[in-house]
Amino acid sequence: MLPVVAVHGGAGHIPKERAELSTIGVKEAARTGYAILQKGGSAMDAVVEAVALMENNPRFNAGRGSVLNVKGEVEMDAMVMDGRTLDSGAVSAVRRIANPVHLARLVMEKTKHLCLTAEGASKFARSMGVPEVPEESLITDYAKMRWKKNLNPDANPVECQMGKMGTVGAVAVDKDGNIACATSTGGMLNKMEGRVGDTPCVGCGGYADNNIGAVSPTGHGEAIMKVTLSRLILFHMEQGMCYKISKTPEEASDLALTYMKERVDGLGGVVVVDSKGNYAARFSSKQMSWAAAQQGELHYGLYRGEHFVEPVQENMQ
Amino acid sequence: MLPVVAVHGGAGHIPKERAELSTIGVKEAARTGYAILQKGGSAMDAVVEAVALMENNPRFNAGRGSVLNVKGEVEMDAMVMDGRTLDSGAVSAVRRIANPVHLARLVMEKTKHLCLTAEGASKFARSMGVPEVPEESLITDYAKMRWKKNLNPDANPVECQMGKMGTVGAVAVDKDGNIACATSTGGMLNKMEGRVGDTPCVGCGGYADNNIGAVSPTGHGEAIMKVTLSRLILFHMEQGMCYKISKTPEEASDLALTYMKERVDGLGGVVVVDSKGNYAARFSSKQMSWAAAQQGELHYGLYRGEHFVEPVQENMQ
Repeated sequence: MLPVVAVHGGAGHIPKERAELSTIGVKEAARTGYAILQKGGSAMDAVVEAVALMENNPRFNAGRGSVLNVKGEVEMDAMVMDGRTLDSGAVSAVRRIANPVHLARLVMEKTKHLCLTAEGASKFARSMGVPEVPEESLITDYAKMRWKKNLNPDANPVECQMGKMGTVGAVAVDKDGNIACATSTGGMLNKMEGRVGDTPCVGCGGYADNNIGAVSPTGHGEAIMKVTLSRLILFHMEQGMCYKISKTPEEASDLALTYMKERVDGLGGVVVVDSKGNYAARFSSKQMSWAAAQQGELHYGLYRGEHFVEPVQENMQ
Repeated sequence: MLPVVAVHGGAGHIPKERAELSTIGVKEAARTGYAILQKGGSAMDAVVEAVALMENNPRFNAGRGSVLNVKGEVEMDAMVMDGRTLDSGAVSAVRRIANPVHLARLVMEKTKHLCLTAEGASKFARSMGVPEVPEESLITDYAKMRWKKNLNPDANPVECQMGKMGTVGAVAVDKDGNIACATSTGGMLNKMEGRVGDTPCVGCGGYADNNIGAVSPTGHGEAIMKVTLSRLILFHMEQGMCYKISKTPEEASDLALTYMKERVDGLGGVVVVDSKGNYAARFSSKQMSWAAAQQGELHYGLYRGEHFVEPVQENMQ
């Protein structure tokens, strides 16, 4: 069953013209992560590089392609977590960085802290030699169009909802059984300046523990925070282990997503792995672009119930 | 058993000359919260005003009296959570605000978001008419002295540790059974600019759920985040309920604090309440100043095993 990697490219209502590109993007990301794992790379390397690829892909709401805040600016959140040590690194409301997930990893590896925010995160980036990129390089025409549309008081709520739902993330277990997660996002469309969502919040925007598994979520960030979605799913899996009432990643995810919907009226989705290498991609939203690679096969889907399989190698260059 | 309020004034190694003032401070805060509850006030009002009082008290590492970051500046984190709705509000790395806990409550009540950071939080404060205070008004001579001492590469590690351990917090259940928590801190002594600790992170720096209870922690923020301490304790209590293996707030706290020590080598402490009004004040550090008020009695302590009781009314003015 090992190694395995599963990624998502955001949950919500994905416009038709972007759906195919989103699927291509998550498949590429899963392949990238899997190639690292097959070469004996760590789960941490796999999730970080899979997420960085999606940050670089303008189709996703993370890195280049991030949604804009109410002022038309890009402020990004990212986190990584290492299931061996429970060590974690995050940045919140960071600007002018191409790959927030790399910066989050540097926070974990090079500081005694777990999270740096805003200007402090930028100063740390400079001290690490991470180049500052022009803000315009992160902003796509599509992001600008949606920002303008949503400034309109008569904005279409479906359009609005889409903006709330993007985030990219990955979970992996490497051949040594080490587990990691990574999540990155531009946040919520037309968010207030300085708004921090679930992503950099340990237990909300991700969690990884070698003893249990890992989760990377996407969806309505505020709802995810209220129920600490990532840790909640792992609690369910853990509880299953303790009381011999086995809760698979799939069952645990569905239980937690249903709870999030009922208790705080929030929609979202997750990719999950357990320590044995079982994975799940589940969502309560209309769609979530996801892909997973395991035992030479690439699995992917977009709508609920969709599950396509093809050889990982097939389209590799 | 209702209403009840429990507060802490930080865990760690509290210097002798400050220990008495710290105990006086937490007793005042518990009395303030309890007076609100007895007049029929909400759990939210009780925890926020108890914490605001400790923010105003220069003996605590929150608001006035906050520890300084590596640049000698004050950056504060705070959060509140409402157990009825799981709604929460937080600010991180906020500057020049007398009462971050009040600003956190405004984030919860006046925005669609749960957390605002740094300059974005300051702009929101201005838009709400929250006055900006001179940074010097938040800095005590004691904080300055410790900052200077710890810049020295030969800094005394015990002194250092003290700096890591302060935070103030409160949990309460009101007569209607509504539950809330609030936590506020200046963070870790000589922290990097922009460092965000556990406090504004839902599930780490606090959690409240009417169905279970509430937690406010203190201690090594990074360790608290790694184990999502607040949600972990409530999960143990919840699990106890589900499987009829009753886990009291005390048992659940000890279980989680022991786990935090063993898994990530972190010390800390918590105040906890459950929905029936049972409270606990537990810590793995040498000391934690705490106080709780219930059924007309004020309970308090500082060292492990200490538990003094006196009538709430006795010293009231």
